[in-house]
Amino acid sequence: MSSPAGAAAVTIREVGPRDGLQVEAPTPPGARIRLVQALVDAGVREVEAAAFVSPRAVPAMAGGAEVMAGLPRREGVRYWALVPNLRGAEMGLEAGAGGLSVTVSASPAYSRRNVGMEVEESVAQAAAICGLAGGRVPVDVVVSCAFGSPYEGDLEPGAVAALGRRLTEGGATSLTYADTTGMATPRRVADLLAEVGTDVGLHLHETRGTGLVNAYAAWQAGVRRFDTSVGGLGGSPFAAGAGGNLATESFVHLLDDLGVETGIDLDALLEAAAVVRSIVGHDLPSPLVAAGPRDRLAAGTSGEGGGGALV
Amino acid sequence: MSSPAGAAAVTIREVGPRDGLQVEAPTPPGARIRLVQALVDAGVREVEAAAFVSPRAVPAMAGGAEVMAGLPRREGVRYWALVPNLRGAEMGLEAGAGGLSVTVSASPAYSRRNVGMEVEESVAQAAAICGLAGGRVPVDVVVSCAFGSPYEGDLEPGAVAALGRRLTEGGATSLTYADTTGMATPRRVADLLAEVGTDVGLHLHETRGTGLVNAYAAWQAGVRRFDTSVGGLGGSPFAAGAGGNLATESFVHLLDDLGVETGIDLDALLEAAAVVRSIVGHDLPSPLVAAGPRDRLAAGTSGEGGGGALV
Repeated sequence: MSSPAGAAAVTIREVGPRDGLQVEAPTPPGARIRLVQALVDAGVREVEAAAFVSPRAVPAMAGGAEVMAGLPRREGVRYWALVPNLRGAEMGLEAGAGGLSVTVSASPAYSRRNVGMEVEESVAQAAAICGLAGGRVPVDVVVSCAFGSPYEGDLEPGAVAALGRRLTEGGATSLTYADTTGMATPRRVADLLAEVGTDVGLHLHETRGTGLVNAYAAWQAGVRRFDTSVGGLGGSPFAAGAGGNLATESFVHLLDDLGVETGIDLDALLEAAAVVRSIVGHDLPSPLVAAGPRDRLAAGTSGEGGGGALV
Repeated sequence: MSSPAGAAAVTIREVGPRDGLQVEAPTPPGARIRLVQALVDAGVREVEAAAFVSPRAVPAMAGGAEVMAGLPRREGVRYWALVPNLRGAEMGLEAGAGGLSVTVSASPAYSRRNVGMEVEESVAQAAAICGLAGGRVPVDVVVSCAFGSPYEGDLEPGAVAALGRRLTEGGATSLTYADTTGMATPRRVADLLAEVGTDVGLHLHETRGTGLVNAYAAWQAGVRRFDTSVGGLGGSPFAAGAGGNLATESFVHLLDDLGVETGIDLDALLEAAAVVRSIVGHDLPSPLVAAGPRDRLAAGTSGEGGGGALV
């Protein structure tokens, strides 16, 4: 709960160009490349930049190879591609992805609905993708609905952990546990970490406004890898009107104030948020984009009398 | 960070009927009474129900005496009135308020702008109000800008604590520290609590999306009194487009899942949120109102294929 200056660094994988934009109207590859450029300029070193999925199912992710080809090559920067199957993995590797993300759902019902597969088939496919990658690039398997499913409700953390072990045995380089529909709370985070340990990534959503508090609780427990999305875009369409992914700038803002190094410059990150704002053409869910960082002072003598009622 | 079942209870003071509605278009007393009724029905036991401020400065709070007169009298339920000065305190006591809230700002510039007084005058006035109450009802002094000011930036926690001690010496029954413009973070919460202890109330805002994480950090540290607002309404108008007060339902949802008793029923509270929604006539900032509690499962077979891209 304290604020250890110089605490162990946190690695943020920025998923806005993929997870954030996939639920928006399609964006041309050039604009997606400019967004990644702005993110890398802000110091982001891990970016999920494209998905090699069916352009019929996810029109916003069309042109993944073009995006990958146009990304700025920088020392120490890795571009991930989300791939749903072997064909997507081949395309991602061919396009030069530095890492592959593969999703396996902990929820049987969600698995059937999202990818039309049983969990078992999905596990086998993840192993096949790991085999294809053959150690040339890391494969991060993202366990969706790891904190519960809108169909089955709570899932046993022990069962989720057992799934994770099988994915590691299948060749996964790393695992990321995703709160796909925003069912995590600090208590559920603690419960899952007790089973899977803290050498995992977390992918958290603000569906119920708990993304930041869950990230904080996980950081306290020792987790050091997080997926976040610039501007807070994305998330599951299963709860219309609710928030998206945990916003990168919200988490960086909190970590900065705790003295935790992320390598990301908050002001430059907010410029990247302005880029994504101009791409999507609507306000972003992230309150920090509206309010600015905590150290941004009021200009001049603005502010009106509140009649003693402002608390 | 763990989840102690049966942990010490948390007391929530609901400020929606006052802080939530004061920035909205004026609401007739009858509707405000119905809202309080719904909150009390949900198990809320402390409600800031009215403000005795100038109706010219804060038109939405006109009719405070009428509101107080129409509130349901229930065993164990206390209705607070916000009062900015001695005249307001007299009116509040006459109207039957069970407690008086008085604001004193830790920020000199904010004090001048919000109440047109120097901090010193404000401290003296709070003491005078405590004298008037004479122990008949509690006086809670709310220290605004306790986590920083948009004019001066960060304030020294030691200086804020010294102000708190003077208010207690002046007769305050209790103190509540307010994050008026959303500058608190878990680190700043820890820093202030280290100076003021944990026998305090906190009044947190979602201006930068940090209200819930700050409440969680404070709860971890041992704070057991919080001001929250149903639906997340209210907050300072100093950061347009940003969030309002910490939403009551968001905090109850989190505490419920930690096994922490609040005495409030979440489903009934969401009905009170529906009442406030109908009063204000626009969507509420609280994501939990849109998404529903974490244990609300998806209906039937809804949900569409995501082409393997939903994480």
